[in-house]
Amino acid sequence: MSLPLGKVPIEILRRILKYANTDKSVIVGPGVGIDAAIISVEKKIIASACDPITGASKDIGWLSVHVNANDIASVAADPRWYVVVLLFPKNATEEQIYEVMDGIKKGLVEVGASLVAGHTELTDKVTDTIVVGTMMGIPMVNNKFVSNKNARPGDYIIMTKGAGIEGTWILSEALGEKLDLDDRIIQNIKKLKSKISVLPDVRAIVNVGVDNIHALHDATEGGLIGALFEIADASNVGFTVDESKIIVLEETRKIASKLAIDPLRLISSGTLIAVVDKDVAEEALSMLKKEDITAEIIGKITEDKKIIRRIDGRSEEIKKPSVDELWRVLSEIR
Amino acid sequence: MSLPLGKVPIEILRRILKYANTDKSVIVGPGVGIDAAIISVEKKIIASACDPITGASKDIGWLSVHVNANDIASVAADPRWYVVVLLFPKNATEEQIYEVMDGIKKGLVEVGASLVAGHTELTDKVTDTIVVGTMMGIPMVNNKFVSNKNARPGDYIIMTKGAGIEGTWILSEALGEKLDLDDRIIQNIKKLKSKISVLPDVRAIVNVGVDNIHALHDATEGGLIGALFEIADASNVGFTVDESKIIVLEETRKIASKLAIDPLRLISSGTLIAVVDKDVAEEALSMLKKEDITAEIIGKITEDKKIIRRIDGRSEEIKKPSVDELWRVLSEIR
Repeated sequence: MSLPLGKVPIEILRRILKYANTDKSVIVGPGVGIDAAIISVEKKIIASACDPITGASKDIGWLSVHVNANDIASVAADPRWYVVVLLFPKNATEEQIYEVMDGIKKGLVEVGASLVAGHTELTDKVTDTIVVGTMMGIPMVNNKFVSNKNARPGDYIIMTKGAGIEGTWILSEALGEKLDLDDRIIQNIKKLKSKISVLPDVRAIVNVGVDNIHALHDATEGGLIGALFEIADASNVGFTVDESKIIVLEETRKIASKLAIDPLRLISSGTLIAVVDKDVAEEALSMLKKEDITAEIIGKITEDKKIIRRIDGRSEEIKKPSVDELWRVLSEIR
Repeated sequence: MSLPLGKVPIEILRRILKYANTDKSVIVGPGVGIDAAIISVEKKIIASACDPITGASKDIGWLSVHVNANDIASVAADPRWYVVVLLFPKNATEEQIYEVMDGIKKGLVEVGASLVAGHTELTDKVTDTIVVGTMMGIPMVNNKFVSNKNARPGDYIIMTKGAGIEGTWILSEALGEKLDLDDRIIQNIKKLKSKISVLPDVRAIVNVGVDNIHALHDATEGGLIGALFEIADASNVGFTVDESKIIVLEETRKIASKLAIDPLRLISSGTLIAVVDKDVAEEALSMLKKEDITAEIIGKITEDKKIIRRIDGRSEEIKKPSVDELWRVLSEIR
């Protein structure tokens, strides 16, 4: 049944609140008539980040938690407290809201965070569901954090999992049979979704010492090249990366070749880029591998130019961040 | 000039970032390639709340700060850190973004908070600008806060400023000349906008002792009756309120009478409802008056029924929260 525009009715709000996942650090969590969450902060530093997710995917709630948790992980913090605003288009149903909340709950359990505040609304100003999340967290190692401003020439660049892994499953879901893929490949692509969190990657790597990690970034929109560009930009350095070292999964190669896209410019949440002191790079790799996370050293930080050495021998200089291949492909197909 | 869909271009993002207002508690604030804000927390407790604002009003950024700051004030906390997601419809311009950011900056200066993280995006999933804010704050009085769960029978209910003050200026702006109001009234209504913050009200009232304040609520959607309902619901009590004691400004009465609406059910951000121990009620009133904030004791908390004693002698029992008069009027007129 459709709900009216504006605030959701109180009896439905009560049902929505049953999905709130809180731990004992949350002194006052979400509730009818409760304006703000009250959080007991054990450490003196908290991290906070926000990201919206739009679209009708049934995973939107779950995704919203992971993309926000990834931002928190990227400063070497553990996600702890989640605040979420859900905007639904007119004629949205109760069931749609519960589906989103169920995904949020699942995601929060996976990352170990609590929902502490929220707002749910139907509005004729959106044409599809929009989930806007704000995650707060605390440093994994007491009061230490990684900013992306500290990459230095000579540092090594590590990547995990594979370039374009998120784009691979998004395109596979969006295009389906048009891609004409083997069943085996399709099954493998479905499993990629479970790799969306960089939290295990960061938890493994912090063991080399937070001070030895000079930048961490999740390769979201713009892909691997976009993430490298943003780190270099934030630290005012360059990089040289060898395409031959970059992990590209067979599944991604198949889709990239069918659609003529560059996997290095394909959205890749779940792929961690870590810039570390060169003396700890091998140790970082072995810690990732101990957690069954594929990882490679793909290049190093330089003084200024941002260079990808392509497999065919060309040197490509990156002068501005890439537009994600995903948008190009989806707009051409629609 | 129109911007493309997706992330805003990096050079524009840099300009947007100039609007970030941060103080020294923000160790890492918003920036290109920075995933999460890092905040040094002096006290062990922080408050966090979120609310979206939709619409093309030029005040949308400023409003988003104040409605979120009001939620933080409503737990007797000072707003300190703001996280904001801006969603613009396609064909939005740079100027529109700066206008919103300028409003955010102005609001943040007014409430004394910093912008610590954000995300700006154009998306074809929205048909109008949407600002989703998350505010974090710290208790005004060391580690003490007000929840709305502690209202007890016998407590006195105080209101400030006037019922429906926000609805009064919204309707005046939306309907303009159709309302056929005197110039003097129109000028007074314009001034009402500056009363939107309940922060001065709460800062005045905490001097009676946070433990003596059993509930605080900002009368947003649903108006005064909606706010009273939510407090009673959260505390599992009732109330008896005398309409004759309720402050309704002349400007609100004029508009309410022209449009046949109930000012007690009209959106009223800026109106604080405070439930206090009866022994401190007079002291609370005088503290508000010392700050030039109009305030009245309008009734008291009871065991169960939610009653408004109307001026004409009728007793109206409130069984469910009101739909805001604003939606009814605006939908009838459009």
